[in-house]
Amino acid sequence: MKKKIKMGMLGGGPGSFIGPVHRMAANLDGLIELVCGCFSSDPAKSAQTGEELCLTKERVYASYQEMIEKESQLPEGERMDFLAIVTPNHLHYAPAAMAMEAGFHVALDKPVTYSLEEAKSLAEIAARTGRRLLLTHTYSGYPLVKEARYRVQRGDLGKVRRVFVEYPQGWLSTDCAATNKQASWRVDPTRSGKAGCMGDIGTHAFHLANYITGLEVDEMCAELNSFVPDRLLDDDGTVMIRYKDGARCLLSASQVCAGVENGLYIRIYGEKGGLEWRQDTPNTMIFRPVEGVAEIIRTATASIESPTAQHNSRVPGGHPEGLIEAFANLYRNFALTLIAEAEGREPSECCLDYPSIEDGIDGMQFVDTVVSSSEQNAAWIKWEK
Amino acid sequence: MKKKIKMGMLGGGPGSFIGPVHRMAANLDGLIELVCGCFSSDPAKSAQTGEELCLTKERVYASYQEMIEKESQLPEGERMDFLAIVTPNHLHYAPAAMAMEAGFHVALDKPVTYSLEEAKSLAEIAARTGRRLLLTHTYSGYPLVKEARYRVQRGDLGKVRRVFVEYPQGWLSTDCAATNKQASWRVDPTRSGKAGCMGDIGTHAFHLANYITGLEVDEMCAELNSFVPDRLLDDDGTVMIRYKDGARCLLSASQVCAGVENGLYIRIYGEKGGLEWRQDTPNTMIFRPVEGVAEIIRTATASIESPTAQHNSRVPGGHPEGLIEAFANLYRNFALTLIAEAEGREPSECCLDYPSIEDGIDGMQFVDTVVSSSEQNAAWIKWEK
Amino acid sequence: MKKKIKMGMLGGGPGSFIGPVHRMAANLDGLIELVCGCFSSDPAKSAQTGEELCLTKERVYASYQEMIEKESQLPEGERMDFLAIVTPNHLHYAPAAMAMEAGFHVALDKPVTYSLEEAKSLAEIAARTGRRLLLTHTYSGYPLVKEARYRVQRGDLGKVRRVFVEYPQGWLSTDCAATNKQASWRVDPTRSGKAGCMGDIGTHAFHLANYITGLEVDEMCAELNSFVPDRLLDDDGTVMIRYKDGARCLLSASQVCAGVENGLYIRIYGEKGGLEWRQDTPNTMIFRPVEGVAEIIRTATASIESPTAQHNSRVPGGHPEGLIEAFANLYRNFALTLIAEAEGREPSECCLDYPSIEDGIDGMQFVDTVVSSSEQNAAWIKWEK
Amino acid sequence: MKKKIKMGMLGGGPGSFIGPVHRMAANLDGLIELVCGCFSSDPAKSAQTGEELCLTKERVYASYQEMIEKESQLPEGERMDFLAIVTPNHLHYAPAAMAMEAGFHVALDKPVTYSLEEAKSLAEIAARTGRRLLLTHTYSGYPLVKEARYRVQRGDLGKVRRVFVEYPQGWLSTDCAATNKQASWRVDPTRSGKAGCMGDIGTHAFHLANYITGLEVDEMCAELNSFVPDRLLDDDGTVMIRYKDGARCLLSASQVCAGVENGLYIRIYGEKGGLEWRQDTPNTMIFRPVEGVAEIIRTATASIESPTAQHNSRVPGGHPEGLIEAFANLYRNFALTLIAEAEGREPSECCLDYPSIEDGIDGMQFVDTVVSSSEQNAAWIKWEK
Repeated sequence: MKKKIKMGMLGGGPGSFIGPVHRMAANLDGLIELVCGCFSSDPAKSAQTGEELCLTKERVYASYQEMIEKESQLPEGERMDFLAIVTPNHLHYAPAAMAMEAGFHVALDKPVTYSLEEAKSLAEIAARTGRRLLLTHTYSGYPLVKEARYRVQRGDLGKVRRVFVEYPQGWLSTDCAATNKQASWRVDPTRSGKAGCMGDIGTHAFHLANYITGLEVDEMCAELNSFVPDRLLDDDGTVMIRYKDGARCLLSASQVCAGVENGLYIRIYGEKGGLEWRQDTPNTMIFRPVEGVAEIIRTATASIESPTAQHNSRVPGGHPEGLIEAFANLYRNFALTLIAEAEGREPSECCLDYPSIEDGIDGMQFVDTVVSSSEQNAAWIKWEK
Repeated sequence: MKKKIKMGMLGGGPGSFIGPVHRMAANLDGLIELVCGCFSSDPAKSAQTGEELCLTKERVYASYQEMIEKESQLPEGERMDFLAIVTPNHLHYAPAAMAMEAGFHVALDKPVTYSLEEAKSLAEIAARTGRRLLLTHTYSGYPLVKEARYRVQRGDLGKVRRVFVEYPQGWLSTDCAATNKQASWRVDPTRSGKAGCMGDIGTHAFHLANYITGLEVDEMCAELNSFVPDRLLDDDGTVMIRYKDGARCLLSASQVCAGVENGLYIRIYGEKGGLEWRQDTPNTMIFRPVEGVAEIIRTATASIESPTAQHNSRVPGGHPEGLIEAFANLYRNFALTLIAEAEGREPSECCLDYPSIEDGIDGMQFVDTVVSSSEQNAAWIKWEK
Repeated sequence: MKKKIKMGMLGGGPGSFIGPVHRMAANLDGLIELVCGCFSSDPAKSAQTGEELCLTKERVYASYQEMIEKESQLPEGERMDFLAIVTPNHLHYAPAAMAMEAGFHVALDKPVTYSLEEAKSLAEIAARTGRRLLLTHTYSGYPLVKEARYRVQRGDLGKVRRVFVEYPQGWLSTDCAATNKQASWRVDPTRSGKAGCMGDIGTHAFHLANYITGLEVDEMCAELNSFVPDRLLDDDGTVMIRYKDGARCLLSASQVCAGVENGLYIRIYGEKGGLEWRQDTPNTMIFRPVEGVAEIIRTATASIESPTAQHNSRVPGGHPEGLIEAFANLYRNFALTLIAEAEGREPSECCLDYPSIEDGIDGMQFVDTVVSSSEQNAAWIKWEK
Repeated sequence: MKKKIKMGMLGGGPGSFIGPVHRMAANLDGLIELVCGCFSSDPAKSAQTGEELCLTKERVYASYQEMIEKESQLPEGERMDFLAIVTPNHLHYAPAAMAMEAGFHVALDKPVTYSLEEAKSLAEIAARTGRRLLLTHTYSGYPLVKEARYRVQRGDLGKVRRVFVEYPQGWLSTDCAATNKQASWRVDPTRSGKAGCMGDIGTHAFHLANYITGLEVDEMCAELNSFVPDRLLDDDGTVMIRYKDGARCLLSASQVCAGVENGLYIRIYGEKGGLEWRQDTPNTMIFRPVEGVAEIIRTATASIESPTAQHNSRVPGGHPEGLIEAFANLYRNFALTLIAEAEGREPSECCLDYPSIEDGIDGMQFVDTVVSSSEQNAAWIKWEK
């Protein structure tokens, strides 16, 4: 009998936005089973969530330290296999580090850590302990994003010249930190890190461009803005990126585009053609040849050429797949990797296709770089890895 | 500790389209646990699917009869609570009837049965045994469909005059029965029933119009067509519906709209305004006042006014929800109903919001009526219930 | 020096909707010059319009009779070449007949006449006098409609099976006849004819389907509705059309789709593919192969294959062309035909590509047939020509 | 009898793209009459175009000098009122200056001149001679752009924070200068000026943002790129603009976005809401309040609140208006201004609503600034006027 992968969760109690998304994503394919959690720093809230999630009381813990310790003492096959951490940024590093040191794999919401230093330290721990880390850059889970990556890297666009990636939102247009739990920590430098908008969604945009194009950054120049009075972190910004081979990327992210929901949009143009994909209509991608007829690429139809895109879709063409499915693709690939290793097989490339600590370091490096550039009035800063 | 609802499954083995969708939908919210199944008439295939789904061998059965018998003998709290039936139409009635007689609830893919008589018989059994039946008319699970229902029934459109509902597909444009498992039984009258396209997707369109408007049918007139040579059942058709209060509906369904994926689209116009919703962009609905400015209603945003729509969405606005989420809403509401009853509580109206046997009878009545009308060269046939 | 074609106009005074459109369409390409008119039955209003249009007072007439008589007496090269008639339907026949008898060509707004008999009589006069008649079924002037016709008739779709053409509007959702000049005559059987919505926009939809597919009608069945209280003519209706070769068309038209502007939409599906075109985004057409990748056909780009579509577009791809340009295409082709004949050349097929009296007869036959069918509770009526 | 305004044209002979657009735009409303021209430096080509345009041979001239001289000698009421100049950039200044000095008004295609100095000189001549100058920044002619300007300046968005304006095209993705007449001069610094893409379409984007927002530029920083090998001028670029009040604009323009037609798109977000408009679907604009329901603003419908937008639309809502209509709005307003002045009336604000020499100077200042900034590796350059 095949075994499900066992998941513990840190965070994701009452009022959490992303915790339930992680759980639904983990549930979707029936490969992962939630077995324990510490859902809130308030034990009553944590217990309430545990109860709702059909967990036994013994496996709802008061702290991540307790969770990691007690789970470690459980027999193999019963204890959790990995810990999903869905707390604010400043609460990523310590539990992730402790969990890996204790032998558990880790899934982390993005950005990976509070600082670049923490990210690099996690990479060291992961390498030393041989633990795996899943970083949930959701958008790279969409089938058409994988199709885009496949086509770009196959050369359908020819040499890439121009990338536009933008991530406008409007939900931080007002000073809502006092009333909106999601807002409160994101605009607080002690919990969010050096950047606000750029850390929260700029890193998504940056990851998406990297994932699809595979281009190497040479330098970048940025202007970050803070439009809402008394806001301490950026709520908007523009980044110009020069790749090493001469291609250019224009990245913008904003959380003060009043009324906009979640407008992540990427366009990539090369010598031979272009691709355009929007996250709010994620089952459609446009391919434009430099001359001729534009084509409508659609999830799970005959227009798909990439095996990876096929592997990462679940329903026949014409039936919309959304955020949770994309999110679930990350969890499924992560779980398939853990299963393969548990069974002594080498995980296939298809399974290993999930964002990890290297992507996390890139994200934190991105944050550091754009903040520095902006502080120097949009100076060009070399990308150093 | 809260208990998960336990599900058994009939059908859904290798090559199944809808079986995995049922399982993902049931998994999504962590309220339902698959505990047993008979996934194929071929025991090897059934075992293979059971293994993939992490079931123990003892609970993968050779037949539905065996499944129902053996599960009945298991202690309460261990045996399945309901049986999900995802076989072709002609294999719905017998297992559903036997399961209910044995005390199990039932979830059925649509259309509910092979014939109207079978549907009526199931209703009788359900009433007598007090068992619940979930019929998966997926589209009524979408948040914006629930918002539409709420707004129409609140009177936002005034008296409804005109409904257009269409369901074009193209996947049966060629004679693919020999090579496409999904096609083979759908075009076969011994397995599909009296109608092809009208049973398969016409019933979805009819249910959707009923669900949103609540109007009572008076009579209907239909022309069914079969365009692909030697096809025995309709692959296309038009139905004109007269409601009792004078409103009119034009329903069309086709599976020979070459290249079209899954174009379910409903528009409802009343004296004061109109609503338009498409399943392929399911997170957007347009409201048109008779004069003034059209509005964009979006899933899980401030544009939503219905508590039911809120209850049936999972992620914040701007993050697409798709077919599996809509499907999962049916399962979640069904599970919440069973949980409430198991705990001795009256299920709320919100939980009871899933299609059931009455909708199934309506669907089969629809099939009978449109087939009769078409056989009489589009005669008007009274709707009799 | 090339001469411009000289136009007179009947109707189109203050408050006219379509008169100015005819004038702009005639102006656009600099081939036609307005030289005279009788713009209103009220001489003061007529004079006012003439003044605004830079006409001399002598050529603003009190009646169409006077206009035709006086213009006939002017020397060739000075007098009008054709008369554009933009009055309500009941005022089409007499001036058109008189103009042709006096040697003038005629341009007529649709539907061609008040009744089928009048249309047939005009055809007889046109044939006898050798005069040309332009009927402004605007939508057939769009480049992409011409591209669709080209592709369908070239066989890109294979044998056509299924046509959907719909024309929803909402502007007659209320009883606005008293306050809206355009509404007042359209809902009045003494001015509009046997049909309301079906004559006004149903004929457009019917013409569009005919123009693109070239299919021959065998029989049709219709239900016409009148939703607004006390309205004497239909404001909504559905028509099922059987073509002689087995293809089917579903045509619907409505003027009570609250809030809808002008939703003309045609879809055509054959054995090998489909085409979809909407008048409200007229520079885009979708081609769907039965399998493979859907293509975006765009006005005036490399995606265009038809010389006719190229001839009928004016600006490079990406610059929207709209209703006036489509309208102007009809006028331009008409003018090019008259110029060719004036110069003793045979007009090319490209020039002769404008709707004429035969299309007008088809439209009136359509009106007669759908009204009869609806009066007989949606009986099938043979198409007789 | 009202008199039409008389137009002469320089340029616009065989193979011209924009010349015919100017003529159609001037024709559309019947207020302007083409009376003379010098359409090409090749007299045979010029004569051919004159013949096609129904001009007498005497008024087709061999040079602009001859045209201006001979027309000056014609009696008032017969000679041209203004000269439309549709030649490449380096051929704007001399004829425009000479025409104004000779008493003629001028219409100029954009960018206004080859250099900033020329633009300033034209302004001086216009001021001294009292001649009017129309600069055809087409997009500001669209009704919804005028609606946007009205709403922004009325305060519907609150204080503007963030502007995104982009103008991607793909037609210069390859080295097509040898075969494409439009390309050849645009990529040639001796004919185009200091900038390629930024002069050709960047100026359009800049004008559009200025027209709608009315914000004052403080400084800007730019990176211009030239992707096609051996191209001497920019074919792509990004500009970050800081307005004096703290608002920010991100402007990008590119002519190497392979396959993209003409994607001008502007989005403006303020404290209270946002507006979004695309030139390729120019009859739709989205208004997003900071909270609540997004609205669909549509040309010529009840959603329009600005009298200017109404004045600049021609057909009822739902009938698409396109580029030529927008272009014609500039010509109509210009003509109405000239008519008013000819009749001794003060032109209304509505008539004066066309781009002029001040916009031209702004455009050339923009070109100078972005070129300087890019040469200094994206340094911030103060905006000086």
